Amino acid sequence: MLERMFDPNGVAVIGASRKEGKVGRAVLENLMANGIENIVPVNPNDGEILGLRAYKGILDVPKEKKVDLAVIVIPAKFVPEAIDQCGRAGIANVVVISAGFKEAGVEGARLERECLEICQKYGVRMVGPNCLGIIDTGSGLNATFAANMAHKGNIALMSQSGAICTVALDWADRTNVGFSKFVSLGNKADLDENDFLEFFENDNSTAVISAYLEGVKNGPDFIKIAQSVTRSKPVIIVKSGRTSVGSRAVSSHTGTLAGSDAAYDAAFRQSGVIRADSLIEMLDLSRAFSAYPLPKGRNIAIVTNAGGLGILTADACSSAGLNIASFEESTINELRGTLPPAANLYDPVDVLGDASADVYAHALETVLADNNVDGIILLVSPQAMTEVTEIAEKIVDIIRDSEKPILCNLAGGTRVSEGEATLQKNGIPNYPSLERAVTSMDALCTYYSIKDRKHSSPQQISVDKSATDAIIKDAVSNKNRILGLESMDILSSYGIKVVDSRIVKTLPEAVGVSEEIGYPVVMKIVSSDISHKTDVGGIRLNLRHADDVERAYNSMMSDVHRYMPEARIAGVQVQKMVSGGKEVIIGMNRDPQFGPLLMFGLGGTYVEFLKDVSFSVAPVSTDEAKHMVSSIKTYPLIAGVRGEAPSDINSIIDALIRISQLVTDFPEILEFEINPLMVMQDGQGCVAMDVRFTIDVK
Amino acid sequence: MLERMFDPNGVAVIGASRKEGKVGRAVLENLMANGIENIVPVNPNDGEILGLRAYKGILDVPKEKKVDLAVIVIPAKFVPEAIDQCGRAGIANVVVISAGFKEAGVEGARLERECLEICQKYGVRMVGPNCLGIIDTGSGLNATFAANMAHKGNIALMSQSGAICTVALDWADRTNVGFSKFVSLGNKADLDENDFLEFFENDNSTAVISAYLEGVKNGPDFIKIAQSVTRSKPVIIVKSGRTSVGSRAVSSHTGTLAGSDAAYDAAFRQSGVIRADSLIEMLDLSRAFSAYPLPKGRNIAIVTNAGGLGILTADACSSAGLNIASFEESTINELRGTLPPAANLYDPVDVLGDASADVYAHALETVLADNNVDGIILLVSPQAMTEVTEIAEKIVDIIRDSEKPILCNLAGGTRVSEGEATLQKNGIPNYPSLERAVTSMDALCTYYSIKDRKHSSPQQISVDKSATDAIIKDAVSNKNRILGLESMDILSSYGIKVVDSRIVKTLPEAVGVSEEIGYPVVMKIVSSDISHKTDVGGIRLNLRHADDVERAYNSMMSDVHRYMPEARIAGVQVQKMVSGGKEVIIGMNRDPQFGPLLMFGLGGTYVEFLKDVSFSVAPVSTDEAKHMVSSIKTYPLIAGVRGEAPSDINSIIDALIRISQLVTDFPEILEFEINPLMVMQDGQGCVAMDVRFTIDVK
Repeated sequence: MLERMFDPNGVAVIGASRKEGKVGRAVLENLMANGIENIVPVNPNDGEILGLRAYKGILDVPKEKKVDLAVIVIPAKFVPEAIDQCGRAGIANVVVISAGFKEAGVEGARLERECLEICQKYGVRMVGPNCLGIIDTGSGLNATFAANMAHKGNIALMSQSGAICTVALDWADRTNVGFSKFVSLGNKADLDENDFLEFFENDNSTAVISAYLEGVKNGPDFIKIAQSVTRSKPVIIVKSGRTSVGSRAVSSHTGTLAGSDAAYDAAFRQSGVIRADSLIEMLDLSRAFSAYPLPKGRNIAIVTNAGGLGILTADACSSAGLNIASFEESTINELRGTLPPAANLYDPVDVLGDASADVYAHALETVLADNNVDGIILLVSPQAMTEVTEIAEKIVDIIRDSEKPILCNLAGGTRVSEGEATLQKNGIPNYPSLERAVTSMDALCTYYSIKDRKHSSPQQISVDKSATDAIIKDAVSNKNRILGLESMDILSSYGIKVVDSRIVKTLPEAVGVSEEIGYPVVMKIVSSDISHKTDVGGIRLNLRHADDVERAYNSMMSDVHRYMPEARIAGVQVQKMVSGGKEVIIGMNRDPQFGPLLMFGLGGTYVEFLKDVSFSVAPVSTDEAKHMVSSIKTYPLIAGVRGEAPSDINSIIDALIRISQLVTDFPEILEFEINPLMVMQDGQGCVAMDVRFTIDVK
Repeated sequence: MLERMFDPNGVAVIGASRKEGKVGRAVLENLMANGIENIVPVNPNDGEILGLRAYKGILDVPKEKKVDLAVIVIPAKFVPEAIDQCGRAGIANVVVISAGFKEAGVEGARLERECLEICQKYGVRMVGPNCLGIIDTGSGLNATFAANMAHKGNIALMSQSGAICTVALDWADRTNVGFSKFVSLGNKADLDENDFLEFFENDNSTAVISAYLEGVKNGPDFIKIAQSVTRSKPVIIVKSGRTSVGSRAVSSHTGTLAGSDAAYDAAFRQSGVIRADSLIEMLDLSRAFSAYPLPKGRNIAIVTNAGGLGILTADACSSAGLNIASFEESTINELRGTLPPAANLYDPVDVLGDASADVYAHALETVLADNNVDGIILLVSPQAMTEVTEIAEKIVDIIRDSEKPILCNLAGGTRVSEGEATLQKNGIPNYPSLERAVTSMDALCTYYSIKDRKHSSPQQISVDKSATDAIIKDAVSNKNRILGLESMDILSSYGIKVVDSRIVKTLPEAVGVSEEIGYPVVMKIVSSDISHKTDVGGIRLNLRHADDVERAYNSMMSDVHRYMPEARIAGVQVQKMVSGGKEVIIGMNRDPQFGPLLMFGLGGTYVEFLKDVSFSVAPVSTDEAKHMVSSIKTYPLIAGVRGEAPSDINSIIDALIRISQLVTDFPEILEFEINPLMVMQDGQGCVAMDVRFTIDVK
């Protein structure tokens, strides 16, 4: 569908200009410099522009120019009309470089909507508005006003910031990194990251997909598409706005802990996207994937002429969870036979400061042949006798022919620059620091397992959906934002066991209910004005007989009245006391981009002070629910430690899947939290002790 | 003392050579190239070397050559004799470049000791052996065989790896970063990091001190010296071996959690040293301190021509704990008057993609004048209209004259290289990524508070040292490595309250003791074969009367026999049960470099699974003990949350200070752990429930 966007027969530039310094001239020049055949300037003053025949309007351009793409660089207010004309002229693709749309305010946003509607009317696809343009190094299309043209390569890059496009292009120019396609997404009025992900998935010239994003437009689609794409091609994204606090009012732990970034972290992980921590890391990883085969494991050999760099690299590998390889006997023997006596023959291999290019090359080949080695980090320090350039020349062929990745760090400055250039000329990155080489190696190893992961879809469990439906409809029609005890019924209808619990209004009722459900019981104050019951003395535990209940009832009422005289008391909740379990918490917060974001953690202080929780975007598969449970740091506390019986982890996983289904079934549920879910010993299930639903009542 | 080492009147090269490729020639050439007047080659074949009169031996060199420094580059086995001759000739300083000493094995180590003894005999000070040499850009001394000479500057750098010296020099050559002194420490047989720290402290040409270290030779001295130096000059150290597990057998949480690196982290923090995470970070921070004044606070302004880079920088600032500045009204008005309407006037200031050098400069000056701004990060992306080089030229003077740091990131590659060169030519760093600029800014801000910190010395508390002395002497003479109940007496003698506790051998005794100390009681099995009592059923809690004690005694004995039939049972400990407190843990592990390393954390699962603990090298001051307590993540749990009464934190601090004094007084205590120390409500103190001492019995 988008093939012609990148490989058009003819390109029109609407707003082409002769004037130096004008964007309309820069675009035209860029197109002309890179071998597109039919380039058609469109300008109210027709005649010739830069030697090309110009036309007054796009409708005046003859059919034989086969214009498939129009690049629009005219003031915003004229753009809708221009797109309309493109539509009428049968041009299926437009790139709107012009600014002055949504980013500029209300009138701009209206214009942008108008453009989109016109596109949709004619089936025209649009990149932008407010973008730098697009590049295809295969077809030779440079429909941008950038000062650099991309080099040819296999990385497809898209960016929500035009300026960051220019940074990336300029960086790539200096490091000789090549791109297949280059897209400045602009305001993403029509085409967005999802469209291009899909397109790049099937684009033969693309092996690696990278992006700078400030957000995704459609979260659920993004996950679906990225899950598929990452099975065949690595996707590396740097997303900004990581630490912005966001302004949503939140009333649960889930909301507070999630912030604005946890959903992205979860969504990227769930869809196999590699999240880069910075722009430079995104570029570093992209060039690693572009240049190297994937390692088959995480056992890394280090070859160095400087012991100190070797130790630092081993440190960095260890921090990244990469293993220092244990060499085969034959490797060590071969190294012993060829390296000087003071050399270190074990990983990290130190070939010593006076190693010649031949010594380096031989050590590299020896280590490369070792079956216990999955990848190599090669370090060169520019010591007095070191022939950095010769070393670089010697190893280029080894690296190029290798089925294992060999990542290089020629460390230093002036004296390694020629060697660096040698590597880069041959399409081999030189990482400016050992840490960047290690981070890139880690990404290669990680993607090897992402690529081969099993796919497990969320299963549908049979539940009593209609019961919940009725409760929620009722809440919506009564504008009842926070649910009361009916929350427990929702859980029950989705097959989650809840504690036996009643709400009472008087002491005699409290005693009666206690006798009925059986001692010991717990009492909790019920009031929509009180969020933290403990703080006001609103919870009494372990009541063993009627006298206990009476004493507790009276003192609780007086405490609550004392602490919060204004609170409206709806009653007292009497619950069966459950003991011997572990408290966990399951929450859900609706993320603006990705929808229902589930949270799991151990209850109480673990959640509050240690933020030891995990997040996943619902719906979750069984594997994903398992991951949620096992990825918290306090997992050993429920898995069983020190001879203690393990908790019923399967019942937590089951509850997570049911909650996942519930919040997917009912978008009206805005926030949700079971706190605590009491998990009993293995085989004995779990039971929800308290739950809080916030319903979207509009 | 070391002044003449770096600024000698004359320098002898023992082992000077005419042969190309020989280290002895490279050293001579380096010395000659940099303006030292009296250079004296020493070589068994006298005559002339590179035009200089050579001598057979150092004793043949005439007095008027005023040789203050001898650089030794002869085979290891001849070095002791050469040093001896230097001593006899009255030469006070030697730099031993030759390798083949401790690093090469037993014979080398012997030679190294011999060299040191000769040095000490004559009062000769030695750098090395096995090093690259030393540089002083002030005196023009280049006594190394490095291929690069350092540029003049104010950074003193020392490195335990010669190869890393060459990397740093080569990097600095490309980035135009200058050094005052440059020292390759080598094997540190005589002079080590502590000597040079002290020397650099008083060296007027040095403003910044940096080091690559693999370890420190004398930990306690290092802390004392660094504490003083960091009050006047920033000290930045990258230490390798961060993640190596170490091979010591450890039997406590403290030991396991400390690993080999926690002591370095604590010692660096306690002495005000800034620890860099990587070599490149060490260099980045060094050039920041070298080039910029210190910011007076953490409020940072960002000026950019690319919104995306601005967001990424704000993210990075926020992660680093830097604040995005709130501008004064006047700043915003001034920006509004001079920037285009679409520009962002609030921090991060976006001057837009077509900003000229003048616009950039004006925005920078406006923000700089704002009283709410402590430092600025300046970002430039190479957009189509961006005149990167002109911008660089325009801002050089502003940056140089500014009393606030302005850190730059010209982002890109080819098109920013000239601007980068312009900055660097003027001694201004260009950070290759915004993250590196932010990390450097963070270090500047952090050092501002390190420099001004109050000094508080550990106080001496009056304790009954003789009681402990007797117990430990007794343990040593009886080869009693693990102390029993007498551990509690040690704590008591140091003023730490311990739980009432007795060891019994029979059930009647257990009941008798229980009656005596008062119910409820706790019983614990006593056996040096059992480390984890819980695992074998060796602990019974909350025994409320004689029947409870009887039942518990019998079942505990049968459980322990079942789980560990081989364990030798020394008896049963009967303790007063203490409830209502919070369990914390205080431990100590003796670090090979720094000595007693204290650990503090919350008891139980917090320590084991969350590793939420803090470390300090003893002796600790009150401030340091406070820091230990308040720096754990779970601190709110003892500080009081949700209306819960705070724990008696002062009593924990007091206990830490007493323990600090104990382990400082008695180096025989190898390991130590109170687990748990039960902390009661504020004002009610704390009480040690269990303690374990490991004594060095040789």
